Amino acid sequence: MAIESPLALLRATLRRRKLDALLVAQPENRRYLSGYTAGDTSINESAGVLLVPATGTPFLLTDSRFELQAAAEAPDFVVRLYPRGLLDLLESLLPKLGIRRLGFESHYLLHATFGKLAKLAARLGVELMPHTGLVEKLRLRKTAAELARIEQAVLLNEAVFQEIYQGLTPGMTERQLAHAIENCMRQRGASGPSFETIVAGGPNGAMPHAVPSARPLRQGEPIIIDMGLVLDGYCSDMTRTVVLGTPDEKTVNLIRIVRQAQLAGMAAIRAGVVGREPDRAARAVIKAAGFGKHFGHGLGHGVGLAVHEQPSLNKRARRQLAAGMVVTVEPGIYLPGWGGIRLENMVVVTESGHRLLNRDTTFLDI
Amino acid sequence: MAIESPLALLRATLRRRKLDALLVAQPENRRYLSGYTAGDTSINESAGVLLVPATGTPFLLTDSRFELQAAAEAPDFVVRLYPRGLLDLLESLLPKLGIRRLGFESHYLLHATFGKLAKLAARLGVELMPHTGLVEKLRLRKTAAELARIEQAVLLNEAVFQEIYQGLTPGMTERQLAHAIENCMRQRGASGPSFETIVAGGPNGAMPHAVPSARPLRQGEPIIIDMGLVLDGYCSDMTRTVVLGTPDEKTVNLIRIVRQAQLAGMAAIRAGVVGREPDRAARAVIKAAGFGKHFGHGLGHGVGLAVHEQPSLNKRARRQLAAGMVVTVEPGIYLPGWGGIRLENMVVVTESGHRLLNRDTTFLDI
Repeated sequence: MAIESPLALLRATLRRRKLDALLVAQPENRRYLSGYTAGDTSINESAGVLLVPATGTPFLLTDSRFELQAAAEAPDFVVRLYPRGLLDLLESLLPKLGIRRLGFESHYLLHATFGKLAKLAARLGVELMPHTGLVEKLRLRKTAAELARIEQAVLLNEAVFQEIYQGLTPGMTERQLAHAIENCMRQRGASGPSFETIVAGGPNGAMPHAVPSARPLRQGEPIIIDMGLVLDGYCSDMTRTVVLGTPDEKTVNLIRIVRQAQLAGMAAIRAGVVGREPDRAARAVIKAAGFGKHFGHGLGHGVGLAVHEQPSLNKRARRQLAAGMVVTVEPGIYLPGWGGIRLENMVVVTESGHRLLNRDTTFLDI
Repeated sequence: MAIESPLALLRATLRRRKLDALLVAQPENRRYLSGYTAGDTSINESAGVLLVPATGTPFLLTDSRFELQAAAEAPDFVVRLYPRGLLDLLESLLPKLGIRRLGFESHYLLHATFGKLAKLAARLGVELMPHTGLVEKLRLRKTAAELARIEQAVLLNEAVFQEIYQGLTPGMTERQLAHAIENCMRQRGASGPSFETIVAGGPNGAMPHAVPSARPLRQGEPIIIDMGLVLDGYCSDMTRTVVLGTPDEKTVNLIRIVRQAQLAGMAAIRAGVVGREPDRAARAVIKAAGFGKHFGHGLGHGVGLAVHEQPSLNKRARRQLAAGMVVTVEPGIYLPGWGGIRLENMVVVTESGHRLLNRDTTFLDI
């Protein structure tokens, strides 16, 4: 069986849904289909849009700043520039291509832009069809080439963690440590962090999304380090909770509970299971230990071109897992005033279970 | 004359436009009105929304992760959490406050989110009024306090540039240089870069938005360094084109043309002029030198809480400049296969002309 390209799969979807074409503006979707790596500065400052017809030549529409990059990176696409804006170009291109039913990404088009597009569509007699997740759905199951890249991103992230962990001393501030981590990522070849690095010592660890502060790290307290990087477009995401010096009994006990929850969550992962089942398995361990109300977030999320993508693992997640999906497994316990413990690994879903992408076992020190 | 707060000015606008309240989701607008500094991870991962009624208490709606920060930073706002999502909270809050006509930011609400909000509004009998730029309009003319912060951001950016420029040697890669710049920004107290630093040597400089590559910088070639940082919430943005060793005649000549274009652009700036006039003045210089088609982008853009904001200086810009606006002036010449030259300074518009915020004159070396 030949493996079909993402572009061919999307075209089949478009034909099935009776769409003449899809406008693809979401940056990871754009990259996934075309190879064009430019990101958007913001949702208002697009680096371009794909116009993918159900049949015939696909187009990459952009402006002159990105012309050379677009042509070099997206050889299967015809690059067209829009010196007077995207709508102006669509006004001539849509009729020329005979596009009557045009899909767009409802989850990445601003209400204001939709208003302008709708006026143009009305003038041209084009029907606009909102869609969410057509390309994201294709991105769910990773190819072998994608898995190899994700694994490289995971291993590089671990190497950075180990380098930093070896040099960790009390008195460094959370912010200094976060910057050291991000510098090290870049020095070792990552494009950068995949999200803002979290370093949260002592009581700050009670906030799952703590922003690194000027607070110095202290001997004996739990320190949550949640870090990820982007390598060759693909993301990693890992959390370790470390202690400088000897952890007290409470900390050791909590780390053991969170680790048991993580193992239970991972054990519940396999193709065919829905996303809330691993969440329930991990949560049951924490609940049984008496900390149920101190694990406020979901167990995990998908990782790929985006650091947060589908499928989710949480109380409400109904999507079935399938072989080739990549998810984090990151239970935690957060005690206001005391601090927090979180452990996070990444796994690939397989037919019979999962394959762990991480090799680092720092949390087993304890 | 008393200076009115942004919040008071916005409320007056709401009353004039017969809006009962405005939802403010755009992060810089949120900060401008409330002081709340949290940013959004992405347009899908909001750190909260302001609900500003035309009269009565204004609210900051967010989730538990941001509760402490919101309360500390936005003392004029009542913080309300939405454990079951924003729409759920609005469902109870809008009727309680008697809001019948609710404005929203059409340029920061996704089409998909609008669909859900519209259903809620229909159920509550609330009329939704799309708006763009109500708060941005207030942000156009900077106060003295804002100008002081922007100037600090400009000067720190120049100090970083000078530190890096002194240590610049052939053989460093574009990416190494970009990382060194961003590290230095953080070490000297910036929150970080205001956009991804551009370092483009030789032929790479022909792309105005080149991404730093692994290409080593070489003696004699033009190297574009476009960098900016965020300090205390406000942005800077500066471009220098430098040469290691002695530039050849062509390079010197092109730098002179671009500098003349910059001076012509700056000279055309003053309150009352529309944004396309400085663009035309700068463009005329480049055109007269025979490089008209090699200056593909606009002359400049506004800078403040956002690194790209209104007013624009380009061929189509019709907005009148006014005293207190801050803009970049950044002409360039880009020659495919050879490279590029760009020079960028920031100025404050005054009644009679402009005030230059930059002091660095590195491009005059040549």
